[in-house]
Amino acid sequence: MSSTIKTARTKVKRLPERGVYDPQVLYRILDEGFVCHVGFIMDSQPFVIPTGYGRVGETLYLHGSTASRMFKSLARGVPVCVTVTHVDGIVVARSAFNSSMNYRSVVILGTATPVIDPDEKLAALRAIAEHIIPHRWADFRPPKAKEIKGTSVLSLPIREASAKVRTGPPHDDKADYALPIWGGVIPLRTTVDPPIPDSEAAGMAVPPNIAHYSRARKSS
Amino acid sequence: MSSTIKTARTKVKRLPERGVYDPQVLYRILDEGFVCHVGFIMDSQPFVIPTGYGRVGETLYLHGSTASRMFKSLARGVPVCVTVTHVDGIVVARSAFNSSMNYRSVVILGTATPVIDPDEKLAALRAIAEHIIPHRWADFRPPKAKEIKGTSVLSLPIREASAKVRTGPPHDDKADYALPIWGGVIPLRTTVDPPIPDSEAAGMAVPPNIAHYSRARKSS
Repeated sequence: MSSTIKTARTKVKRLPERGVYDPQVLYRILDEGFVCHVGFIMDSQPFVIPTGYGRVGETLYLHGSTASRMFKSLARGVPVCVTVTHVDGIVVARSAFNSSMNYRSVVILGTATPVIDPDEKLAALRAIAEHIIPHRWADFRPPKAKEIKGTSVLSLPIREASAKVRTGPPHDDKADYALPIWGGVIPLRTTVDPPIPDSEAAGMAVPPNIAHYSRARKSS
Repeated sequence: MSSTIKTARTKVKRLPERGVYDPQVLYRILDEGFVCHVGFIMDSQPFVIPTGYGRVGETLYLHGSTASRMFKSLARGVPVCVTVTHVDGIVVARSAFNSSMNYRSVVILGTATPVIDPDEKLAALRAIAEHIIPHRWADFRPPKAKEIKGTSVLSLPIREASAKVRTGPPHDDKADYALPIWGGVIPLRTTVDPPIPDSEAAGMAVPPNIAHYSRARKSS
């Protein structure tokens, strides 16, 4: 089993009690989501772009068009930061200062590397697709050579990484608890509505992995 | 009425039909969320950190502890990128290549400036708090001088900015529609569960802005 590395750059300095470095915790947070925010630098300007991802063991895979500025830039081997965030609730304190959010986030630093080997590339594309919809790969029309060629896949080791997690009720100033002000948490979560077939799929049986879609994921 | 600026840096190049530059559309996307991802550079490394925000007209406000690395770094007046993303659905195509997501995202580039003026700072803190929970400010215990001093507030003009929006069903290859493969959209949305009072608020009436909390926002 691997471990992540706590460096000076990924150590949670503000509110260090919220810092988590256990890879299994990081993996669970990563596996529950499927959109990350990728940070990279172009001409001294940081850019933050949302994109899909998948995970295979200790590796995070990103994919995009070979024509995209971001993937062209990343494929050169530049430093990136990949962040995944789940907002679980609004922490309603008795003061603005103590108000907060319940969340789980993972920050991964490193250099993304283009995946060139055709077998690894296909495996990565499958991992990303099935990270989003389990077992979907077998139902897809098989990929064409030009589609694979037109897709850039990048791998990023989940090594220099940390999670930050806040849970539970507000932490108000002691004196503030005596005030007649409501305090607690407004829980938030992502829900899945019934799938909407397109016109060609109307009347077709909905596959079980679509009909019973959920973002709750087992972690391995 | 203001307008955002479409520069070479914010022009949507990949799939330009998804690019949106109307400020009112940007504001609606910004107002529906309350967590952004802030990108900045430290020692040649990009960082992407989730944080709360508020909007007043054409200005985005961020706040954080004056002790945080991010806010110390941002307060020096460095280039930032602030991105807000809503994932509205998974677009299930008949091929992996045509699979996609429905989303609305805003990317703002610029330089964040510390808000020094005490009145503007208080107004910004109020805007951030009420961006998250409308009308909450009046219910809070009033802020203390040391709390305001310990909070760093940054303003970022919503000027060099663009939105990217995808909606609707998959766009499959024409021939793929004849295949016996389901295609459509799995809609996703953020839901609010009933508020959970902390032990001191148990039995207290829940204020209407908490009891009927919703992320649907009017835009102005």
